[in-house]
Amino acid sequence: MLVCRTKAELKRELSELRKAGKSVGLVPTMGYLHDGHASLLRRAKEENDAAVLSVFINPMQFGPNEDLDRYPRDEQRDLKLAEQCGIDLVFMPAVQEMYPSKPLTSIIISQVTSRLCGASRPGHFDGVGLVVSKLFHLVQPDRAYFGMKDAQQVAVIEQMVNDLDLPVEIIPCPTVREPDGLALSSRNVYLTAQQRQQAVVLSQTLKRAEQWHQEPQMTAGALIAKAAGHIEEATEGTIDYVELLTFPALEPLHPDMPLSEGSGRLILALAVKFGTTRLIDNCILDLSEVNGNAANHDEV
Amino acid sequence: MLVCRTKAELKRELSELRKAGKSVGLVPTMGYLHDGHASLLRRAKEENDAAVLSVFINPMQFGPNEDLDRYPRDEQRDLKLAEQCGIDLVFMPAVQEMYPSKPLTSIIISQVTSRLCGASRPGHFDGVGLVVSKLFHLVQPDRAYFGMKDAQQVAVIEQMVNDLDLPVEIIPCPTVREPDGLALSSRNVYLTAQQRQQAVVLSQTLKRAEQWHQEPQMTAGALIAKAAGHIEEATEGTIDYVELLTFPALEPLHPDMPLSEGSGRLILALAVKFGTTRLIDNCILDLSEVNGNAANHDEV
Repeated sequence: MLVCRTKAELKRELSELRKAGKSVGLVPTMGYLHDGHASLLRRAKEENDAAVLSVFINPMQFGPNEDLDRYPRDEQRDLKLAEQCGIDLVFMPAVQEMYPSKPLTSIIISQVTSRLCGASRPGHFDGVGLVVSKLFHLVQPDRAYFGMKDAQQVAVIEQMVNDLDLPVEIIPCPTVREPDGLALSSRNVYLTAQQRQQAVVLSQTLKRAEQWHQEPQMTAGALIAKAAGHIEEATEGTIDYVELLTFPALEPLHPDMPLSEGSGRLILALAVKFGTTRLIDNCILDLSEVNGNAANHDEV
Repeated sequence: MLVCRTKAELKRELSELRKAGKSVGLVPTMGYLHDGHASLLRRAKEENDAAVLSVFINPMQFGPNEDLDRYPRDEQRDLKLAEQCGIDLVFMPAVQEMYPSKPLTSIIISQVTSRLCGASRPGHFDGVGLVVSKLFHLVQPDRAYFGMKDAQQVAVIEQMVNDLDLPVEIIPCPTVREPDGLALSSRNVYLTAQQRQQAVVLSQTLKRAEQWHQEPQMTAGALIAKAAGHIEEATEGTIDYVELLTFPALEPLHPDMPLSEGSGRLILALAVKFGTTRLIDNCILDLSEVNGNAANHDEV
């Protein structure tokens, strides 16, 4: 496994791969890899001749009061996991290498960034758009792999790829969970033992919502209220948002809309703070499937 | 010569070229080609295995009161000229093909766009950044060729390429002129016979400025005043701007700065309106060269 710390090294190694006609899969990460990342790495390796992991904690996607300084790092462990997953090349640049001077170019993606983490973390997705487009230009992958835990990030990147005609296929991958349901996240290490116990409420709420949204007369507003109520009852966590939106456009629904009349995919997205640690999770509810099934039942 | 009107066709043809290991040069244009474009096309062909011309009048870089609707077009003549210059592939998409839906992604380049045409034409360079990045992603050229008549465009695109790590080399090419000095431009066809005669004032002013800026005690402010004075005296054109800036950063100088104390490259940039037709022109003044020479003279 090759480790490149400069753009020049990366370019050199990749041009060898491309000359040999090999397809390339990229997994962009901020490091401190867990089994969720490992599932992306293994899939990138399976579906491409060569798999590239990038590890870069991108300062431009952190707000001034966010956790940039204390974001967890463990380079040696990351390299070991990458090797175990069959990664061919790791790109691990320093901040100075990625941003030799203050960039004057911004990539701003509107609408899909106006709610959820885009609203809670102003500027976050501008930073994500910039760094992901840089990584796409540096690596020029055929496919890039992102976890659905950051579903809004997937929606934002797909929008950018379509709008800019970026020559890469975005592959959204399912969220990987602990045995009790907690979505894997590098930020889980911040949790105290008690917070860790309570954090299961996110996945628990999503699981229940998959039942609730099929109840007759259930509306968008009622489902949100039920989910928020459950989180507030079951934990000391503070809700940042509980939202039900169309996916991937991320547009809100009228609160009185009966879900039985809907079609297409919705996302139920949660962000809850435990102390200073903010956790997110989400599930996709496919109304076409549910209401299609319901219609079939009526006919029988 | 191949003519592709869809992204899918373009992708197919380019993948053949790339499989064969051929280098690609791109000349992005809005069509209605003149000898200035022809010089770019010939150079792209000389320096690359395959040369691609794109012809697309990009609505997103025109303001609401600009000349989008009357911008001149002549597809057949463009194709003939391209063929004469040895172009291998022409990409000529319709607006609907380039923008199948309203893009939600903006590329905004700050600072280098704050003056000159960036100030006179708000949003213009956002549109340029978007369409050029789309063309770079679609064609993936090794080199892209731009005329120095649009010097700010060159500066803006170089900034974007650096900030986004776009894998393309930008080749700025000298302005091509009529025998009397008028810079070639597709917009010259708008000029009446009298305006055409007066339009020579732009290149004439630049030529004189190449002498004026070497005069002892000449300052930035005095050079601008002299250039503006000359334009006002010699024509009925209305000055949009006369500016002297550093190049390529496009930062202003203190008006009292003696040019003999300066170093590096400056741009003297002019925009003058004749009736409803706005013409631009510019020259690069290399102070290091001039002041370097002056120092040598003193020593002799």
